[in-house]
Amino acid sequence: MGKNLTKRSEDYSKWYNELVIKADLAENSGVRGCMVIKPYGFAIWEKIQAGLDKMFKDTGHENAYFPLFIPKSYLSKEASHVEGFAKECAVVTHYRLKNSEDGTGIVVDEDAKLEEELIVRPTSETIIWDTYRKWIQSYRDLPLLINQWANVVRWEMRTRLFLRTTEFLWQEGHTAHATRQEAVDEAELILNIYADFAEGHMAVPVIKGVKSESERFAGAENTYCIEALMQDGKALQAGTSHFLAQNFAKAFDVKFATKEGKQEYVWATSWGVSTRLMGALIMTHSDDNGLVLPPKLAPIQVVIVPIYKGMDQLDAISDKIQPLIDELKAKDISVKFDKRDTHKPGFKFNEYELKGVPVRIAIGQRDLEQGTLEIARRDTLEKTSIDMDKAGDHITKLLEEIQESIYKKAETFRDQNIRSVDSYEEFKEVLEEQGGFIAAHWDGTAETEAQIKKETMATIRCIPLSGYEGSGSCMVSGKPSERRVLFAKAY
Amino acid sequence: MGKNLTKRSEDYSKWYNELVIKADLAENSGVRGCMVIKPYGFAIWEKIQAGLDKMFKDTGHENAYFPLFIPKSYLSKEASHVEGFAKECAVVTHYRLKNSEDGTGIVVDEDAKLEEELIVRPTSETIIWDTYRKWIQSYRDLPLLINQWANVVRWEMRTRLFLRTTEFLWQEGHTAHATRQEAVDEAELILNIYADFAEGHMAVPVIKGVKSESERFAGAENTYCIEALMQDGKALQAGTSHFLAQNFAKAFDVKFATKEGKQEYVWATSWGVSTRLMGALIMTHSDDNGLVLPPKLAPIQVVIVPIYKGMDQLDAISDKIQPLIDELKAKDISVKFDKRDTHKPGFKFNEYELKGVPVRIAIGQRDLEQGTLEIARRDTLEKTSIDMDKAGDHITKLLEEIQESIYKKAETFRDQNIRSVDSYEEFKEVLEEQGGFIAAHWDGTAETEAQIKKETMATIRCIPLSGYEGSGSCMVSGKPSERRVLFAKAY
Repeated sequence: MGKNLTKRSEDYSKWYNELVIKADLAENSGVRGCMVIKPYGFAIWEKIQAGLDKMFKDTGHENAYFPLFIPKSYLSKEASHVEGFAKECAVVTHYRLKNSEDGTGIVVDEDAKLEEELIVRPTSETIIWDTYRKWIQSYRDLPLLINQWANVVRWEMRTRLFLRTTEFLWQEGHTAHATRQEAVDEAELILNIYADFAEGHMAVPVIKGVKSESERFAGAENTYCIEALMQDGKALQAGTSHFLAQNFAKAFDVKFATKEGKQEYVWATSWGVSTRLMGALIMTHSDDNGLVLPPKLAPIQVVIVPIYKGMDQLDAISDKIQPLIDELKAKDISVKFDKRDTHKPGFKFNEYELKGVPVRIAIGQRDLEQGTLEIARRDTLEKTSIDMDKAGDHITKLLEEIQESIYKKAETFRDQNIRSVDSYEEFKEVLEEQGGFIAAHWDGTAETEAQIKKETMATIRCIPLSGYEGSGSCMVSGKPSERRVLFAKAY
Repeated sequence: MGKNLTKRSEDYSKWYNELVIKADLAENSGVRGCMVIKPYGFAIWEKIQAGLDKMFKDTGHENAYFPLFIPKSYLSKEASHVEGFAKECAVVTHYRLKNSEDGTGIVVDEDAKLEEELIVRPTSETIIWDTYRKWIQSYRDLPLLINQWANVVRWEMRTRLFLRTTEFLWQEGHTAHATRQEAVDEAELILNIYADFAEGHMAVPVIKGVKSESERFAGAENTYCIEALMQDGKALQAGTSHFLAQNFAKAFDVKFATKEGKQEYVWATSWGVSTRLMGALIMTHSDDNGLVLPPKLAPIQVVIVPIYKGMDQLDAISDKIQPLIDELKAKDISVKFDKRDTHKPGFKFNEYELKGVPVRIAIGQRDLEQGTLEIARRDTLEKTSIDMDKAGDHITKLLEEIQESIYKKAETFRDQNIRSVDSYEEFKEVLEEQGGFIAAHWDGTAETEAQIKKETMATIRCIPLSGYEGSGSCMVSGKPSERRVLFAKAY
């Protein structure tokens, strides 16, 4: 298997597209903008799901499921929400097909036209808050901490595997609270969970911040976000957590009786991460040889490739290696022993490099004689020979080390690519020549923000929750600025 | 909390509908025929998912994800498939909304009409086989053993929570094989997994069989099924596994090179179970007091209700009971200690009975003094007092006993409700007066089958894989019959 992967330095975008296909993660389907997530890609997504789901449950959230379809009238109830989502949604207008009269195929049955069109959910605030009205009467019913894992559809014009697809998979949390403060706390709790997951599981360093008003979720009073930096210097929004104030409660008339018996509107949050995280994962760590996966999310953590001639040698290797396989499995390490005789070791090495398996073990005739193994780590491509009887402990530690090491590497890259600039000229220069995050002063107006976006393609990724403090003057308008914000070109 | 549950004997159907709502499992949404699965119901579904998913993976299947939308033309490619599904599907015709010209709301943007309509998947054979064409070239690519967990939509006219909803959740397996025999074996392997899961986890006894030709899946050469019997004497199809022969491979032109280098069409299976299983679970075990859940699927396996006056007593109980809670948790038993002071013990007893928690522990002042606990099992409503220091082991065994006991009870009921009849008169009489499965001779023709269905509402649930052997004459036509088949009215 030749990898034939375009180099990142040649064409980063092409490298990404090829890698997603060649590593068997996903591919485009026959349906415009919709992807097929292949088993290997889906196995990574399942690990992302499992990790996040546990964190949500550990903090008191429960899963539920709400309808795929949203009546058109629901979408209209929250004014800014409909502005944000009506322009890119899939609309169901009919509920039946029939044979065409000329007998050449099937056509929409015009007799089966819906009285009210249904929208395929682009996000579920409206259908969920319509439901919450029935669930919430009193302060005793609060907080309501609910999450759903679901597919959503946004009719994107330009799509890219994982990063922007018409249909994508995500989780969306929707919580209801008795007070403003509780809802704000929840939005921040989730932001921290997202950041912890990104850094601790995905090994992707992120910056926590809030969005500027024009980048906020349609219907939110405040949008918290985590922003990551890809190797090409572009930012990627990896998760958002919204403080919705009472906007949806008012739109859907959801009130509760306080302890004192007063009727008040409920406070809300919503938050989500999606299969886009797969894009962040791929672009943060991978290299010109293929995927690099953090051990915590790798479907196969250790692969063992026997190097042998004839079945006798393979049997001897199998016998010798079995105790190690058992030891690793007992430690919940996923191991694959690739005995296939249809492919040569070199082909297998290539394949597992491409697929980002963190640790590869090779064992051949000489290893058998010497009681050794060759261990290769995917992130650095370093190979070492170790004693077989120490392999179990060695590999356990190595997996931890790789997890940490790829995080550090990504963090160093990210930190080296945050630059403070004080003039708009310098801003443009850095943006074009170096990319990365640019910390600059901004006057806080949507006008200036729009001007910068129009002239440079850079957007305010976030107003960081910590760091970059200190007042100054806006690099564009010269007006006073309370603090620097982070700009970047973004996915 | 008064349960106010209609009695099964009064109105079984009303009892079911009320129970689903009152036990907080699901409710109807604002979207016609679509349900909201509430957290408690979803927690059961998650356990069903986890159990099945493990069984699929243990037998070599992998998960993947395919698009929600199916181009209309795909659906038409397999002739009988389109016949079966075109009449009840949701059709996406547009991809944008806009503000109405009179400013009163939003309307479909006619400029955003799709060139080809998209169908919301009612099942995914067509989109998946269109993809498999790209994945399968050689015998080395086979077998392909893939499953997906997804939502599907069938525009049902009459809907009922879990049993028949417009949108439902399910898993659908789609496998590809080099030979007919391998595909048949796969379909049977899955049938056995379904049966083992139903009996071993859900405690629902099932009969394994194949469908008559007219009840087959649209596009299948053979449909295997598991059939369960509900307490009202109606049958419920709990899962199906289809041998698709080469039908979809031919429709989508999926060929592979054999070892000998010949090009052949691929053999296929597909198989699924859905949230309908929730209906089977509820209706098999529950009683006039509410849900009865098998311990293996109960989100809360043990609930502890303290009976106390004042915080001092509660603290004393909490201290005393904590070791038991720790012991049970260490054994992976899910325990809830319900300390709420907003509700009285009697209310809580009612609530957990309604929700089917298998084991309830009550502990009060006298128990503290005597070192005892009151243990009530949900299935029999029996209460016993036991020594606190033996509680851990006792409860572990009790959960196993309940799992077994509710299975036996359901099995006894089912076995008592399978009756052999030899004349059509007797058939009608038994069907009306007793219900259940009726084993009768049938001449094997679709005409007779249709006549019986029209005249009695009973359908052939399955031709059992074992039992009921021996030839005879059709109860309707008098023509020869090779074996008895099972009839019933069904959900």
